[in-house]
Amino acid sequence: MLSYSVIGMGAIGGYYGGRLAHAGREVHFLSHSDYQYVLQNGLRVDSCDGDFHLPHINAYSASKDMPKTDVIIVGLKSVRNHDVLPELLRPVIHDNSIVILIQNGIGLEEDLLKIFPGLQIVAGLAFICSAKVGPGHVSHQCYGSINLGNYSCNQEQFEVLLHDILDASIQAAEVPYMEARWKKAVWNMPFNGMTVALNTSTDRLLKNPATRQLIYDQMMEVIGAANALGVESLTADFADKMMQMTDEMVPYSPSMKLDYDFHRPMEIEYLYTRPIAEAKKAGFDMPKLAMLEAELKFIEEQR
Amino acid sequence: MLSYSVIGMGAIGGYYGGRLAHAGREVHFLSHSDYQYVLQNGLRVDSCDGDFHLPHINAYSASKDMPKTDVIIVGLKSVRNHDVLPELLRPVIHDNSIVILIQNGIGLEEDLLKIFPGLQIVAGLAFICSAKVGPGHVSHQCYGSINLGNYSCNQEQFEVLLHDILDASIQAAEVPYMEARWKKAVWNMPFNGMTVALNTSTDRLLKNPATRQLIYDQMMEVIGAANALGVESLTADFADKMMQMTDEMVPYSPSMKLDYDFHRPMEIEYLYTRPIAEAKKAGFDMPKLAMLEAELKFIEEQR
Repeated sequence: MLSYSVIGMGAIGGYYGGRLAHAGREVHFLSHSDYQYVLQNGLRVDSCDGDFHLPHINAYSASKDMPKTDVIIVGLKSVRNHDVLPELLRPVIHDNSIVILIQNGIGLEEDLLKIFPGLQIVAGLAFICSAKVGPGHVSHQCYGSINLGNYSCNQEQFEVLLHDILDASIQAAEVPYMEARWKKAVWNMPFNGMTVALNTSTDRLLKNPATRQLIYDQMMEVIGAANALGVESLTADFADKMMQMTDEMVPYSPSMKLDYDFHRPMEIEYLYTRPIAEAKKAGFDMPKLAMLEAELKFIEEQR
Repeated sequence: MLSYSVIGMGAIGGYYGGRLAHAGREVHFLSHSDYQYVLQNGLRVDSCDGDFHLPHINAYSASKDMPKTDVIIVGLKSVRNHDVLPELLRPVIHDNSIVILIQNGIGLEEDLLKIFPGLQIVAGLAFICSAKVGPGHVSHQCYGSINLGNYSCNQEQFEVLLHDILDASIQAAEVPYMEARWKKAVWNMPFNGMTVALNTSTDRLLKNPATRQLIYDQMMEVIGAANALGVESLTADFADKMMQMTDEMVPYSPSMKLDYDFHRPMEIEYLYTRPIAEAKKAGFDMPKLAMLEAELKFIEEQR
């Protein structure tokens, strides 16, 4: 069994960390705002798969007080990756630690590897509806699987990690790193920004014929970029599938829309700037998503 | 001397019609909302070139009551071109009438000629700051020249018109039709829509580096479209000039932003849909302006 730490005890970190602890893993939680509360009350997870409560968890208010662990789950917003993530990680990684970045966007692993050369990094793509509903309290409504893409991890160690997570009753699977990151961008790039730019929800964007076509065009820009970067398995079929899936979803506010509504910084860099720059390096333009990036930067600046 | 009628007695029609009447031309004004008022009080123009008041003007509440005239000046919003303009024009045009469309956009003349085959049409591009400030009351702050582009007019008759207008102390000049329409679109297409999409003003769009670049990119799309349609005289220099001119302007709300703010329909069709379609026919894509068109259609629908 591996030891874990969780950096960012929100909807994602709280859920997966909680489930690992519930299954008997050693888990250490870094919690700034909720530290005093979780120390006294533990962590509560209301889950569609069965509620559970962990009355005592290993909670810390500073990462320098935490032990080094085999696995570090990062559930922070990517806007913190430059300014605070390196300091938070340094005390908890040992020579063979694996860092799982459960974050949205493109370029996250590359940037982190520059700061920690040789670090074993895994991309975590969570398919889950969960929300932090109070201090030390996560509500998990549905889904819950996590896809893991090996970015710079020893493959043997990666498989040990995968099995340890599966043993803890979390649905997990290995996916090809690049394909998985870009697949997620096919949905994320159009919907996150457009719901902010037009201050609306996914269903309204799809109901209006003009924005429906625009969303599709933007999905095709992401697929074109992925193809230009060598991800050949992504085709127009996937855009059709994402359109259909979103048609069938309840009206939904993507994470960037929630960040905007709650006056938190938006993840513009890793959701837009970096993928657009990566595509450009490969000779592929994403004009409509580049325009969306500019609009989001303007909106962010004007607040 | 030619006889004139004015359809749309707002900032544009009121000003140019007023100046022609002031210079002794026979001018007939169609006025729906202000009809009773102007019948009793005439037309007042406060102008940087000298105020004047016309106590008695030929005012009509229906175009069927108007005489046929040599020239018809159309100052209506282009959103009315499909539903009411043909009916309004029919009673006032004779076999040799010239219609001057002082309206924004691309494709206006083409559409009107389809309805009135053989009609003599001239594009009017007004460079003027004027506003309707009350019933029968126009305020003219600065500039005032009008460029005329011959679309389907007999050239001899066109020159008679040009001289008649010049004789009435209006600064006027002949310009090449296609070039003039597309030149105006270089400024109009980026700024009209972007001030609405981001609910802001020209100066803020230029101050933010991301939207400044976006505006420039959109200008280059218009120039590229014009080039593809055979207007070779338009080059990147003109975009630079428009950027500089706008930097030097006071913060400005373009006409579409005013329409949006005052809950009037926006001129999406002739400012966006048509020029984008014309460019596409010539094999040229305008992705960022097409995205803006979609955003504007969404905004219009949601109100």
